[in-house]
Amino acid sequence: MSELKVGLAGLGTVGAAVFRMLERRKAELEARTGRTLRVTAVAARDRSRDRGLDLGGVIWFEDPVALARDGDIDVFVELMGGDGDPAKAAVAAALDRGIPVVTANKALLAKCGVELAQRAEASRAGLHFEAAVAGGIPIVKTLRESLAGNTIERVSGILNGTCNYILTRMAEEKLSFHVCLGEAQRLGYAEADPTFDIDGFDTAHKLAILTSLAFGTQVDADSIYVEGIRQLTLADLEAADDLGYRVKLLGVAVRTETGIEQRVHPTMVPKHWPIAQVSGVTNAVAVDGDAVALTLVGPGAGGAATASAVVGDLFDVARGARGYTFGLPVAELTKAERAAMQRHEGGYYIRLAVVNKPGTAATIARRMADEQISLESIMQRRPDGAETARVILITYATTEEAVRRAIAAIEADGVISALPQVIRIEKD
Amino acid sequence: MSELKVGLAGLGTVGAAVFRMLERRKAELEARTGRTLRVTAVAARDRSRDRGLDLGGVIWFEDPVALARDGDIDVFVELMGGDGDPAKAAVAAALDRGIPVVTANKALLAKCGVELAQRAEASRAGLHFEAAVAGGIPIVKTLRESLAGNTIERVSGILNGTCNYILTRMAEEKLSFHVCLGEAQRLGYAEADPTFDIDGFDTAHKLAILTSLAFGTQVDADSIYVEGIRQLTLADLEAADDLGYRVKLLGVAVRTETGIEQRVHPTMVPKHWPIAQVSGVTNAVAVDGDAVALTLVGPGAGGAATASAVVGDLFDVARGARGYTFGLPVAELTKAERAAMQRHEGGYYIRLAVVNKPGTAATIARRMADEQISLESIMQRRPDGAETARVILITYATTEEAVRRAIAAIEADGVISALPQVIRIEKD
Repeated sequence: MSELKVGLAGLGTVGAAVFRMLERRKAELEARTGRTLRVTAVAARDRSRDRGLDLGGVIWFEDPVALARDGDIDVFVELMGGDGDPAKAAVAAALDRGIPVVTANKALLAKCGVELAQRAEASRAGLHFEAAVAGGIPIVKTLRESLAGNTIERVSGILNGTCNYILTRMAEEKLSFHVCLGEAQRLGYAEADPTFDIDGFDTAHKLAILTSLAFGTQVDADSIYVEGIRQLTLADLEAADDLGYRVKLLGVAVRTETGIEQRVHPTMVPKHWPIAQVSGVTNAVAVDGDAVALTLVGPGAGGAATASAVVGDLFDVARGARGYTFGLPVAELTKAERAAMQRHEGGYYIRLAVVNKPGTAATIARRMADEQISLESIMQRRPDGAETARVILITYATTEEAVRRAIAAIEADGVISALPQVIRIEKD
Repeated sequence: MSELKVGLAGLGTVGAAVFRMLERRKAELEARTGRTLRVTAVAARDRSRDRGLDLGGVIWFEDPVALARDGDIDVFVELMGGDGDPAKAAVAAALDRGIPVVTANKALLAKCGVELAQRAEASRAGLHFEAAVAGGIPIVKTLRESLAGNTIERVSGILNGTCNYILTRMAEEKLSFHVCLGEAQRLGYAEADPTFDIDGFDTAHKLAILTSLAFGTQVDADSIYVEGIRQLTLADLEAADDLGYRVKLLGVAVRTETGIEQRVHPTMVPKHWPIAQVSGVTNAVAVDGDAVALTLVGPGAGGAATASAVVGDLFDVARGARGYTFGLPVAELTKAERAAMQRHEGGYYIRLAVVNKPGTAATIARRMADEQISLESIMQRRPDGAETARVILITYATTEEAVRRAIAAIEADGVISALPQVIRIEKD
């Protein structure tokens, strides 16, 4: 039986899980592909560390680029992470010599996806990255292959398990953001420096890749509007609940009249939507095509789930499956027209802390009317004895620009006493 | 650009949708595959019918077998349906001459899957059938390719939109089974003779295929335990709701100690499960692997959704993707050990109409105890003035055999006045 020699760069949680999965499923994968998938070379920093893996007979490289460039391998698996070298140099080196690459590196693809796809195309080596978006959920294959007959209108998802864990616990247990962040850190769901997750950048990287696959555009992470979940309060989540919504950090890419709108921000979604019911660290992706609307739910991170996606890609390499990195030849990927966030249209939730004096509600309502914003509801509540009252506005569909102007005017009127909270609403 | 000549047998709703989708997505599919996908020959009964398709230049066959055997085609698409000839003969004829086949025919695969897979293997032609299970949901590709690294423990799903539509309307609008069936027929979701859908046979066909893909076994529809939804009453659905469950017609295949258990029956699932929240004609499939648990939700039927799956398969044919029909060579598909339904273990909902005399509850409780069945709850209610009372029992995990014996004993005791209702419960 012919062998598929796997070179594995990165032996952390995911790398070790891939190694073990290939051993555990050896006979099955042989039967399914007609080839023996075997790790023949690895690159990792610390050779002395005990990873519980039998690395006898496996060639050890200190330098992942050397493994990619010189290793006796049929496929290079990049599990180091990072959007620069050595990950980039190693992936480029493998592709340039015609060796297919499997990677879980979303940051690298979001930043250098087009360049790497070009290298892959030039040498006819595949660049596979199912593990880079939504972990164990096969959304890359679904967009690139299964939905080839569809024109995609919208792709959106819960793409960061850390944020969804925090939002779920806040809502279900009436806890503050900071308490839930601490819990996430204690459980290993969030890093010591959680910025990358909770400020939306991780979601944005994944969304940039999905956008390219869904719309046939060049990956363009820079044009994504990004807001994280740091500023959300329990009061907002409770108000959303009262109104029939849940708050999720969504990545959304949608075809509009002015171009592709890409945005990451907390979003109020109707409770009955499948995506609203996704709780904890679980991820979900919804795709709206002209023929089919799908929702895929599953684990977005973790060693086993990520390894499952990596091994699925190795299965494709072993059976000789071919395809363009982002579905289309690089020359056919269009430079996406960016739809400006200013022109985003939708409903809005606006929470204002207002000073307690007569006429405040009238002032707010007038500023909204000035911008042609219709209100679905306006609720005012002043806790007993408090100096400020809380006003929550729900608007009908309007534009981001109008909302920002109205809020600026209200601020200038001097009737609000703290930063306003704005959450976009998605609904049927 | 090289052409992929498509022969299309069957020009009903799905066939026409495939024809149109290939025209609409022509440029896109060319860019993605490097080939022009064009319908060059069709077979259908009534040539005079106006289908709104431009069939100029397309060769017309009266006989689908002749098209499969003699047509100048590169791929044969079978959309006629039926588990015998001409569908079977046509598929066999195409495979035997090495022409890949794309089919949406679940009945044919459930009955003749192994034989057809053998023919495909012998001539190295692919047999593709994404559209045969759960319509637009890419569950076949997910099981066969994406989850290749997983050992699958369980696959289950809402695989029949007609039943799910009826159960959803009953529960949400407090309507009887017969009223909802009538509505489903009026809307075209159910046939004039609805037996095939509502008695669970359609679900069983799809489950048989999923079981083979998930567990590497020979398709064996005959070993599936099948119960439909005809006997469900609104009272059962309301009781389930009170207890925190929804009732769904599920197909379930699960690896047990005694073999693969395959069953189709109404099932109470916890409301918070993603599958519980799938409403209307929508389908859903949940897969539990050792590395990944996924739930896929989408349209299970309809022209556009089915065409999407067919075109996804044609995309794979065009790019030369190869794979075994059921994931493994036929010689490696095991003959599944059937787990007897008698040995099924789980919780049960049992509703009894009991005669109104002292000691009835005690009799029932004793019969349960005789079979070592522990009760989670027992509720008795007698509507004012009624001759019979309703007793609802919820059991802890027990066996099908014990439940059946206990009920037989209670019937022999003469304390119940109508057929008992039994619904199996699935929970965490």
